[in-house]
Amino acid sequence: MKLIREPDELQALALSFRASGKTIALVPTMGNLHAGHASLMDIARPQADILIVSDFVNPTQFGPNEDFDAYPRTLEADMALAEAHGVDILFAPAASSIYKADASTFVKENSCSQGLCGRSRPVHFQGVCTVVNLLFNLAVPHLAVFGQKDAQQVAVLKRMVRDLHIPVKLLVAPIVRESDGLALSSRNQYLTAEERAAAPQIHVALQALSAAVSAGERVPAKLEKLFKETLSAASDLFEPQYLEFVDRETMAPLEKVVPAGTLVATAVYMKKTRTRLIDNILL
Amino acid sequence: MKLIREPDELQALALSFRASGKTIALVPTMGNLHAGHASLMDIARPQADILIVSDFVNPTQFGPNEDFDAYPRTLEADMALAEAHGVDILFAPAASSIYKADASTFVKENSCSQGLCGRSRPVHFQGVCTVVNLLFNLAVPHLAVFGQKDAQQVAVLKRMVRDLHIPVKLLVAPIVRESDGLALSSRNQYLTAEERAAAPQIHVALQALSAAVSAGERVPAKLEKLFKETLSAASDLFEPQYLEFVDRETMAPLEKVVPAGTLVATAVYMKKTRTRLIDNILL
Repeated sequence: MKLIREPDELQALALSFRASGKTIALVPTMGNLHAGHASLMDIARPQADILIVSDFVNPTQFGPNEDFDAYPRTLEADMALAEAHGVDILFAPAASSIYKADASTFVKENSCSQGLCGRSRPVHFQGVCTVVNLLFNLAVPHLAVFGQKDAQQVAVLKRMVRDLHIPVKLLVAPIVRESDGLALSSRNQYLTAEERAAAPQIHVALQALSAAVSAGERVPAKLEKLFKETLSAASDLFEPQYLEFVDRETMAPLEKVVPAGTLVATAVYMKKTRTRLIDNILL
Repeated sequence: MKLIREPDELQALALSFRASGKTIALVPTMGNLHAGHASLMDIARPQADILIVSDFVNPTQFGPNEDFDAYPRTLEADMALAEAHGVDILFAPAASSIYKADASTFVKENSCSQGLCGRSRPVHFQGVCTVVNLLFNLAVPHLAVFGQKDAQQVAVLKRMVRDLHIPVKLLVAPIVRESDGLALSSRNQYLTAEERAAAPQIHVALQALSAAVSAGERVPAKLEKLFKETLSAASDLFEPQYLEFVDRETMAPLEKVVPAGTLVATAVYMKKTRTRLIDNILL
């Protein structure tokens, strides 16, 4: 496996692969690689000749009071994990080589990005769209794999790819969970032991909600009440930020829950560390 | 020469050229091709195996009160001109195949695009950046050629290409003028005979200004006065919208004119038809 630091070096190499008829897959990550990322690599690996993983904590998708500085950087361990999953190139650039000091160009999606996480994180998806767009320009992949854990990100990026006619096929990997049901996330390591023990209840509450829909409940407010009660029955450490019932493709809020095709997405703060966890379930 | 209407067809063909090691040049145009466009094709032709010209009046770069409907469409003549200049593919899509009804993704440049034409045309450069970005995704060119006539567009696109690490080399072609000095533009055909006869004075006035700088004048206000007097001495049909002295790369206004590297750009309305003509000169 080759470690590349310089954008120009990656691009020249990727373009030469293209010119010789090779196919390229990209898995964009912010590093601190775990089994969730590994599942993306395992999906990508058989689909292309060359597998590139980017490992870049992108500053522009963090708001001013978010955890950009605290976000874990573990390049050595990332290299070992990537190598073990058959990655050909790990691209770990410096932020200063990705963004010039006077950078002034942004890619913005104005519809799918507005609700859910976009409401409380106004610059987040602009940062995501811009960095994914430029990573596509550097790695020139035929396909890229993203995780369903970030369901809104998937919807926003699919829209971006469609609207800008980007010649990259997006594949979506299922959420990978700990054995107790907690969705894998680099942010799980921010949790206290007590928060960590309680956190799987978010998935339990989403499953309870899904069961209620299967039993006939269709009213979002009643389902939200059930979700919150399921959380608070287990612990007083939860502070839900949102629970939304949306169309899985457009992320548009639904007034009535449709049993098939509704995405239920939530963000919950853990009160002690103010760690913000997201999870979702497709009905 | 092949005429292609469908974006997917162009993209599949262009990607297959790439995969077989061929190089591609793109000349993006809004059609109504004239000698100015032909000069871009002549620059591009020897630089690549495949020459693609796009012929698309892009609705998103026109404001609500601009000339989108009136803009001349002359596909038959365009095909003849393109073929005569060695073009391999003329890409003339329908707007509905480029933009879905619910398109919601935009590329925006926030610095070079702010002054000059950007001040009176607030959506123009967002439309230009978005369409050029998506044309690059469809034609996957190695290089693209633009005209210096649209000097601000060149600066904005160079910035976009730099910021998003787009693997396309931009070449800039000199302004092509009529024998009387008027810069070629599809909009020249909107002019009355009287306006057309007067219009070359815009170039005369820019040259007078340039001569004054060579003679030592450095104060923008005095140079602007000279420019306006040179126009009004010839005709009362001119209504200057702006005359700006800017850095040629950033388009940032200069308080003092620098003899080398200053771009002097102007937009002038012709009063009878309200046709807006732009021109520029590099000191």
